[in-house]
Amino acid sequence: MTDPKSAEVLLEALPYIREFRGKTIVIKYGGAAMERADLNEPFALDVILLRLVGLKPVIVHGGGPQIGALMKRLGKEPRFVGGMRVTDAETVEIVEMVLVGKINKQIVGLINHHGGQAVGLSGKDASLLRARRRGHRLPSGEEVDIGLVGEVEEVNTEPIRLLEDNGFIPVIAPVGVGRDGATYNINADLVAGEVAAALGAEKLIHLTDVQGILGPDGTLVSTLSRKEAERLMSAGVIDGGMLPKVESSLRALEGGTSKAHILDGRVPHAILLELFTREGVGTEIVL
Amino acid sequence: MTDPKSAEVLLEALPYIREFRGKTIVIKYGGAAMERADLNEPFALDVILLRLVGLKPVIVHGGGPQIGALMKRLGKEPRFVGGMRVTDAETVEIVEMVLVGKINKQIVGLINHHGGQAVGLSGKDASLLRARRRGHRLPSGEEVDIGLVGEVEEVNTEPIRLLEDNGFIPVIAPVGVGRDGATYNINADLVAGEVAAALGAEKLIHLTDVQGILGPDGTLVSTLSRKEAERLMSAGVIDGGMLPKVESSLRALEGGTSKAHILDGRVPHAILLELFTREGVGTEIVL
Amino acid sequence: MTDPKSAEVLLEALPYIREFRGKTIVIKYGGAAMERADLNEPFALDVILLRLVGLKPVIVHGGGPQIGALMKRLGKEPRFVGGMRVTDAETVEIVEMVLVGKINKQIVGLINHHGGQAVGLSGKDASLLRARRRGHRLPSGEEVDIGLVGEVEEVNTEPIRLLEDNGFIPVIAPVGVGRDGATYNINADLVAGEVAAALGAEKLIHLTDVQGILGPDGTLVSTLSRKEAERLMSAGVIDGGMLPKVESSLRALEGGTSKAHILDGRVPHAILLELFTREGVGTEIVL
Amino acid sequence: MTDPKSAEVLLEALPYIREFRGKTIVIKYGGAAMERADLNEPFALDVILLRLVGLKPVIVHGGGPQIGALMKRLGKEPRFVGGMRVTDAETVEIVEMVLVGKINKQIVGLINHHGGQAVGLSGKDASLLRARRRGHRLPSGEEVDIGLVGEVEEVNTEPIRLLEDNGFIPVIAPVGVGRDGATYNINADLVAGEVAAALGAEKLIHLTDVQGILGPDGTLVSTLSRKEAERLMSAGVIDGGMLPKVESSLRALEGGTSKAHILDGRVPHAILLELFTREGVGTEIVL
Amino acid sequence: MTDPKSAEVLLEALPYIREFRGKTIVIKYGGAAMERADLNEPFALDVILLRLVGLKPVIVHGGGPQIGALMKRLGKEPRFVGGMRVTDAETVEIVEMVLVGKINKQIVGLINHHGGQAVGLSGKDASLLRARRRGHRLPSGEEVDIGLVGEVEEVNTEPIRLLEDNGFIPVIAPVGVGRDGATYNINADLVAGEVAAALGAEKLIHLTDVQGILGPDGTLVSTLSRKEAERLMSAGVIDGGMLPKVESSLRALEGGTSKAHILDGRVPHAILLELFTREGVGTEIVL
Amino acid sequence: MTDPKSAEVLLEALPYIREFRGKTIVIKYGGAAMERADLNEPFALDVILLRLVGLKPVIVHGGGPQIGALMKRLGKEPRFVGGMRVTDAETVEIVEMVLVGKINKQIVGLINHHGGQAVGLSGKDASLLRARRRGHRLPSGEEVDIGLVGEVEEVNTEPIRLLEDNGFIPVIAPVGVGRDGATYNINADLVAGEVAAALGAEKLIHLTDVQGILGPDGTLVSTLSRKEAERLMSAGVIDGGMLPKVESSLRALEGGTSKAHILDGRVPHAILLELFTREGVGTEIVL
Repeated sequence: MTDPKSAEVLLEALPYIREFRGKTIVIKYGGAAMERADLNEPFALDVILLRLVGLKPVIVHGGGPQIGALMKRLGKEPRFVGGMRVTDAETVEIVEMVLVGKINKQIVGLINHHGGQAVGLSGKDASLLRARRRGHRLPSGEEVDIGLVGEVEEVNTEPIRLLEDNGFIPVIAPVGVGRDGATYNINADLVAGEVAAALGAEKLIHLTDVQGILGPDGTLVSTLSRKEAERLMSAGVIDGGMLPKVESSLRALEGGTSKAHILDGRVPHAILLELFTREGVGTEIVL
Repeated sequence: MTDPKSAEVLLEALPYIREFRGKTIVIKYGGAAMERADLNEPFALDVILLRLVGLKPVIVHGGGPQIGALMKRLGKEPRFVGGMRVTDAETVEIVEMVLVGKINKQIVGLINHHGGQAVGLSGKDASLLRARRRGHRLPSGEEVDIGLVGEVEEVNTEPIRLLEDNGFIPVIAPVGVGRDGATYNINADLVAGEVAAALGAEKLIHLTDVQGILGPDGTLVSTLSRKEAERLMSAGVIDGGMLPKVESSLRALEGGTSKAHILDGRVPHAILLELFTREGVGTEIVL
Repeated sequence: MTDPKSAEVLLEALPYIREFRGKTIVIKYGGAAMERADLNEPFALDVILLRLVGLKPVIVHGGGPQIGALMKRLGKEPRFVGGMRVTDAETVEIVEMVLVGKINKQIVGLINHHGGQAVGLSGKDASLLRARRRGHRLPSGEEVDIGLVGEVEEVNTEPIRLLEDNGFIPVIAPVGVGRDGATYNINADLVAGEVAAALGAEKLIHLTDVQGILGPDGTLVSTLSRKEAERLMSAGVIDGGMLPKVESSLRALEGGTSKAHILDGRVPHAILLELFTREGVGTEIVL
Repeated sequence: MTDPKSAEVLLEALPYIREFRGKTIVIKYGGAAMERADLNEPFALDVILLRLVGLKPVIVHGGGPQIGALMKRLGKEPRFVGGMRVTDAETVEIVEMVLVGKINKQIVGLINHHGGQAVGLSGKDASLLRARRRGHRLPSGEEVDIGLVGEVEEVNTEPIRLLEDNGFIPVIAPVGVGRDGATYNINADLVAGEVAAALGAEKLIHLTDVQGILGPDGTLVSTLSRKEAERLMSAGVIDGGMLPKVESSLRALEGGTSKAHILDGRVPHAILLELFTREGVGTEIVL
Repeated sequence: MTDPKSAEVLLEALPYIREFRGKTIVIKYGGAAMERADLNEPFALDVILLRLVGLKPVIVHGGGPQIGALMKRLGKEPRFVGGMRVTDAETVEIVEMVLVGKINKQIVGLINHHGGQAVGLSGKDASLLRARRRGHRLPSGEEVDIGLVGEVEEVNTEPIRLLEDNGFIPVIAPVGVGRDGATYNINADLVAGEVAAALGAEKLIHLTDVQGILGPDGTLVSTLSRKEAERLMSAGVIDGGMLPKVESSLRALEGGTSKAHILDGRVPHAILLELFTREGVGTEIVL
Repeated sequence: MTDPKSAEVLLEALPYIREFRGKTIVIKYGGAAMERADLNEPFALDVILLRLVGLKPVIVHGGGPQIGALMKRLGKEPRFVGGMRVTDAETVEIVEMVLVGKINKQIVGLINHHGGQAVGLSGKDASLLRARRRGHRLPSGEEVDIGLVGEVEEVNTEPIRLLEDNGFIPVIAPVGVGRDGATYNINADLVAGEVAAALGAEKLIHLTDVQGILGPDGTLVSTLSRKEAERLMSAGVIDGGMLPKVESSLRALEGGTSKAHILDGRVPHAILLELFTREGVGTEIVL
């Protein structure tokens, strides 16, 4: 930062820091950002900087290939229906071990190693994510049982608030607990949306491994209204793994979140670039 | 409680509730109490009652057979040297998954299901258990490398205090983190002693699957002074799995804990009986 | 408590402690519980235990035979009209001395001697019980002057809250003060009802020297609705000294109290048995 | 206050209000100030004004002729040894009733009637005045038993602080409680000194029915050092009822009180005149 | 204060101190009170006494002859249109220097020298007085440009509250700041009214150099309702320098102020006499 | 910030933000930074950014040419002795008007216009800068009277703390007040040093119009120890306007400040570059 240009960069961030100070930013961490080793440190630094300049980041992470890897080693063949993992009792146990005992701890350790103060939470901690069983409707309209896959019924924001109000960065694993004590695997994108809604977060940021949402003509859509998003979904332009991200975004907006973002997690420091830039990157979804 | 005797029982507890109110009680949860399904609910109820009448329980749990079971399924043969598990990188990853992602969550879920508000913590959360590598000295005096086995260097009490001061019950998994970010497996008994010392806990309670400490004549020793404990250890009367429990107790006393207890976890509600009874059960260790 | 049954008793109390924690329990202390020396200590212990496990007991006491005894020694013949003591200026002075200077202090001393922290309050302290003169209507419909007998116009809850929020047990003597500064003797049962209503107490408990409310067939009524209570009063089944207790209970329910209880104060620890038992003892009155 | 002179009076008080703001002033209320009806209202107004301008008055009152009157009516002949009332069990009960149930309530009612917020306390409330039995040494050196006459062993300042920090004016009756629960009559002057010492009060004011302390030549002594006071006592110039007032003053000074005052309670508003005047009235005792 | 009459004066103030305790009193300081050296100390003492007995005085001051004197020395001829100073850029700079750098500091220094804790504020501090340009309408109806003369658009009460809640006396200079950063000269009377309204002050006091408001018959009007004030203004009975004082008073009443007062600042201690007297002096304006 | 380099700049600042968070940075604002219009906005933005990312900037400003200009217009010829302005009563009044009523308000307005929350303070506010008269010793050793020139006797940090703890940026004019109420002109550099020392500021930054301190060989000295500074002063290498800056720096270090800096205020954003760069710019002085 020995040349004056550096100061200009800092000052460009000033109005954004002012705007977001004291506000909660929920970040869904997954895809390339999580899986490519070279992108881990930039992510940790971004999160720590957010916290340092007064924002309150809350991380929700997903699972990905590590779950499959352990299942394979244990001789369990993962089975998917309509993009949802079919989850029997043994599978949910493996999922929980990997999400809570491995991935969550890697992220917590990563942030702490760079100087942050992260604390991991499973949806079981203080019954943070109260869940119920969710069936899955096939395109044919048929409802299939996909086992211990849940959807969020209620978010207990108390432990999250306690941590974020005391300088900690909460890192949440998408495991829910039923009223009967059962463990549920929940789609991490949807958890992020519910958490953002429950906290009345200022922003929900999805880190993905695509550029953002592409329109019918294949070019990046910068801003998407709720209505347009719904239209693109029913037209099948938004589909596959992007569907739960958009649904989660709409859920957050409903709960009071100002903007949801689909960012390209392959770009280092995409979070900083989005939060502290004039134009923003990726796609933003607004009411 | 329809007969007046019930009232007498409650009133007998009165002076103890008064004495321990607002004080921290560290409970090492392991052995039979943890592994026998019929003893889980009594344990959860005891912990919740403690919290309700104003004490602050903090749970430290161990691992036990579940780690070995997963290792076996993954084709890893557990290896022990002098009672300490030899821990390579793959092993410590399995240990962490089982401790943090399975056992910790079972305990948290158990307490919450009965109406408590438990929150699990790994030693990585907020770098709670800062650890360093610990060698192991054989009886022959030879020092052997047992891998990623750690000992506690420093306990960050901040997140524990935050949780216990806000009505939560912290449940700690004995996984430590080195200054270089490495994961360490730490003996749960020793973790409990360090946590009790760091918190200046009023009591440290070890739930075991024996009656308590037996003297040279094979009868239960009710009270043991520090000096006597050291004598019995060097005489080999205290040995095996009891050794780390006694070491942990002495460490806690050093840090300001008033009394450490070795209780028979096979007796339902041993914690309540110990805390709220005139005579106490098991062995107590005092300065 | 050396046998496991003791633990069961403690645990049976758990849901009740949880339910009533932090809530105010107004106890009208009178009748046998107060006058029989062997019942004093059990009462004090019950109150202290309530406080210790997190409830907030507030005591309102009556007078009874001690007032008559002093009046007789001073050569004043007590005179009653329709169960209400006729109270001239000299009488109210004697009443105040006995209630505030003798009985209140005995109760305060009793609780403190067993380890509580009681503080006595007269209705004059901080004008706690603002009172106005109350006439008395005979069954004949005729209104008679019974002198300095008052009814509660307003309760200043501030000093009660201050004491109970700081760990003290308030003990209130049923003496009121008029806007002109005059002293009024007020029926203690009615004071208890007004205090419970003003505090929005969770429960109002009347300790009496009967078993509870008896129905037309002479058997104990366990639960009484407001409507049934009113019917039994107009039918004359509830009469005499039980009348003000039921009126007081209805007044408390009106003010937000959940349940009022008429308990047999001759049973040692009736308070604990009622609060921490499944069935309860005596009669409960609900909306 | 229509003429400017009024403003001058107010302004003369300014430096004194500044000096004493937030400080505790213990006032022993007795003698003429208490017994002459025309002096009651001025006393109440003075205390309320003190409180309003930010000082914290604490009242300790005595008993006087009312105790004797009731004893006479009850056929008990008061008996004194060396100026100390001999107190059997029946007497102490009468003393307590009159002090706590009559005089204390009159003072509390008086202050509240004029707009203050007084709360009465007996030494039994929260065991405020822990007392022990005090023997009495005759001039001959002989020690005589005077019964349930106590001296202060310890003052529990907690309830006094709680009240004065929340806008209330504590009014304390000089009744103490032994560790065995026994009731003790304590000299009110000495209680005032102990209370001032325990609170580290700024001032202790004794309202008496004499002009102040008279020197050997019969003229008023304005200021008295500790040493001079001790000399005048051993010379017998200070004697009789003035002795406990001076002892109490020296005790207060020892505990950190800046000045003790012996004022003429027959002068209306003696307290205001003393606290807010340049010269002061009566005798002041300093270290 | 050696004679008892002094106590009576203090006690007469008692109900007023009680009534106004903790409340904000906005005082417009100007006219004779400010310009006659012998009246400065009485003013400072009054303000300090108010603060000491628990009221919260806030001072707004004007400018007067000192501005003209400096302008004359600098060769600027002051120009007025309809009683409003015409203010070009150079003039507003001189006005600001005199108001903020001279008069404000004299008042602050005066109060602090007598033992208060005053802190000066310009309308620029924390943008306390957000202003906009105000035209001036001549009696002929013609609107004339009078330059950088402003009117209050918004009062930022935050810094005033911060100071008054922490024991300081805010002293405000009537200089405003536009949204474009421009400096505005604002009529001090009107600033006082806006500040009183924004703070919801209990009272607004104008210190003037006349006796109060005179009615059509030339005698002092003690009390003036809003309606009467408006009538007298449109009738031209209230005119000249009295007009902004009455407008300011009506503005304050609108904002929740209970009473506004026009006092004769030539009477020493007029503030104390008004606040603590039964009849009051000068004219009071009420809704 | 559309290219990733921007993120790198932000992240380079991270460790410095962490280090200085919550700490006070005293900035002496003068010289080119203050007098060149194009440098005003960069200065304001730097200060606001500091505040936003959690540091607590406190500004002390000087006077400079504006004082001389007004004196000239008023026909006063400024007179200097040994670099110190000779200050008669009329001069100090002009100085105060310019410093407090003009320059201070320009800086406050500048910061607020860009979105900060600045509040100006003179040394008279809450007697912030208690001053005494300072003589001046000529090189010849002769002591000359330079009039109302003061030195800081005591700094009242209370109002500064109040403002900085509540989100405001204090801007201090170097005017002091004597115990007799007299106004003193004080060297702004020395005020900055005293304020830094009194606050125990983390850093003291002098913005000048030179590059920093030059060594005997005319090259910039990056780091200067206390000892070296003293040597360079007595050798005459440090002289003229740099002398009070270095004296002020040493005074701050004495009071607990970690580092003092002499920066080139002609470089835009010199403050940001210094605080958030690895190497730093200008000269730093350390113990």
